[in-house]
Amino acid sequence: MSETAEGVRAARADRTAFRDLRLEIEEFHFDYADALERGEVEQWCEFFTDDAFYCIVARDNHDSGLPLGLVYCEGKGMLKDRAFALRNTEMYAPRYLNLQIANVRVHEVSGATIRAEANYLLVETLVEEPSRIQQVGKYYDLFERVEGRLLIRERRCVYDSVVINNCLVFPV
Amino acid sequence: MSETAEGVRAARADRTAFRDLRLEIEEFHFDYADALERGEVEQWCEFFTDDAFYCIVARDNHDSGLPLGLVYCEGKGMLKDRAFALRNTEMYAPRYLNLQIANVRVHEVSGATIRAEANYLLVETLVEEPSRIQQVGKYYDLFERVEGRLLIRERRCVYDSVVINNCLVFPV
Amino acid sequence: MSETAEGVRAARADRTAFRDLRLEIEEFHFDYADALERGEVEQWCEFFTDDAFYCIVARDNHDSGLPLGLVYCEGKGMLKDRAFALRNTEMYAPRYLNLQIANVRVHEVSGATIRAEANYLLVETLVEEPSRIQQVGKYYDLFERVEGRLLIRERRCVYDSVVINNCLVFPV
Repeated sequence: MSETAEGVRAARADRTAFRDLRLEIEEFHFDYADALERGEVEQWCEFFTDDAFYCIVARDNHDSGLPLGLVYCEGKGMLKDRAFALRNTEMYAPRYLNLQIANVRVHEVSGATIRAEANYLLVETLVEEPSRIQQVGKYYDLFERVEGRLLIRERRCVYDSVVINNCLVFPV
Repeated sequence: MSETAEGVRAARADRTAFRDLRLEIEEFHFDYADALERGEVEQWCEFFTDDAFYCIVARDNHDSGLPLGLVYCEGKGMLKDRAFALRNTEMYAPRYLNLQIANVRVHEVSGATIRAEANYLLVETLVEEPSRIQQVGKYYDLFERVEGRLLIRERRCVYDSVVINNCLVFPV
Repeated sequence: MSETAEGVRAARADRTAFRDLRLEIEEFHFDYADALERGEVEQWCEFFTDDAFYCIVARDNHDSGLPLGLVYCEGKGMLKDRAFALRNTEMYAPRYLNLQIANVRVHEVSGATIRAEANYLLVETLVEEPSRIQQVGKYYDLFERVEGRLLIRERRCVYDSVVINNCLVFPV
C-alpha cells in the first residue's frame, strides 16, 4: 500500500477522534446557511472573528495558487462593509437562496484552532424561473474557539462554477 | 454585540444539547425520503400522527403569512386520501425522484414536542431528460414522540421554486 | 397499523443502535468523495477490499433485476485497470466534479459486514458552462471492517439519470 494511502488511513483515525467536532461544525454551518438564506448579512458577520479572512475564489485560480478572487475581505470591518453595501444597494434581481452544506471533514486541531473542509451547493431561484445551481464548491476553513463557541478565522470559498449567472455580490 | 447575536449564541448552546435529537431526526428524514423515492405513499402516511397537519406553500406566500398552498392536509385521513389518489391516478409522466434532506436544526423541545427545521432538495428525472431540480425549500416541523418513536405532527414544506415544471401532486 | 409499518419501526429501532456506525460511514464517504473530486483515482481504489464488486447501473435496469450497467468491476484488479485507464487517456473534456453524499442509512450488521445505503448527487462543471447535475442516485453498499477500518466490499451505484451528458467513464 502506498504511503499516501497510509497517510489517508492515519488521517481517518484522527477524524474518528474528531467526530464531536465534526457534528459541532455541522451545526455551525446550518446556522450560518440559515442566516444567508434569510438575507441576514449583518448576522452573517457575527460568525467570524474580528481578524477574519474571507474570500471567494475560482477553483482554477485556487489550484494555480492565484489569490485573485471575486470577493476578498481582511478583517471583520470589511465583512461589515460588504454586509452594509448588500443591505443598502440592490445590484441584483430578487431571488431566493438555498445553501446546502455537506461532506464536513475535520483535518486538524491545534490549540484553539480547527482546520476543516466542507462542500457547499447554492441553489438560487429567480422570479418566474426554475431553481438552478448558482454555485458549487468547497469551504477551506480555519475555526477558532472563542469563549466556548466556534467562529471562522479564515474561510476560502473555492467554487467549481466557472460561469456564474450574475455578478456574485452575495456571500456564501 | 447585538441582542440578536446574543440570542443566536444562546440558541446555539441549546442546539448542542440537542445533538442526539438532531441525529435521530436525520435518521427519521432519511427513512421518510426513501419511502417517497420508492413511491410508497401509504408508508409515507405512517410518518405522521393521526391529527397531523401537512402543507406545501410557496416561500413568498409563507413569508407574507398567507396560508394558501399547493397542498393542504388536516389529519391523517386527508393524507391517506392523497396517498390513495396518487396510487390510483396517473396525472403525471413517470419520473424518478431523489430527495436530499440536509441542514437539520433542532430549535426547541417542549414536553414530547420538538420544533425543528431542515433543507430539502428534490431532484426529478423524466424519461429521456436530464435530471433537474424540481423543488428546493425548507421543512418547518413539529415532531411528537409517540411510544418512543418520532412522528410528524406538523410539517410545512416551504419551497423557493416559483415555477414548478408540472402540477405538484407528489408530496415532499 | 400495517405489518410493513411495523417492520419499518423495528428497523428504525435498529438504526438508532447503528448511529455510531452511520457517522463513521459518513466520514468514509466524505473522504471517498474528496478523492474522486480531486481526480485521485488510484487513491479511490484503496477504499475497496481486494475482492470488491463495483458497478454503476441505471435505476430501471436495477429495478428489473438486470445486471447490465455502464461500469462493472469484479475485484480490485479491475478497479485499478479502470483507474489506470482514466489516468492515461483523456476521453472526456476537462471538468470539475462535486460529489455530495447524503441520507446515509445503516440497515444490517452481520459479523464484520455492514449493509448500508446513501444518496449521491454529482454536480459537474465544464469550462464555460453552468454547473449541472451529472448524475443522481443511490449507493447500495456492503462494507467490511478490515484491521479496524472500513472498506467497500460491494458498491452498486444506481442512478436515476437516464440521459447522461457524456460517456460515463468516471466513477462515483
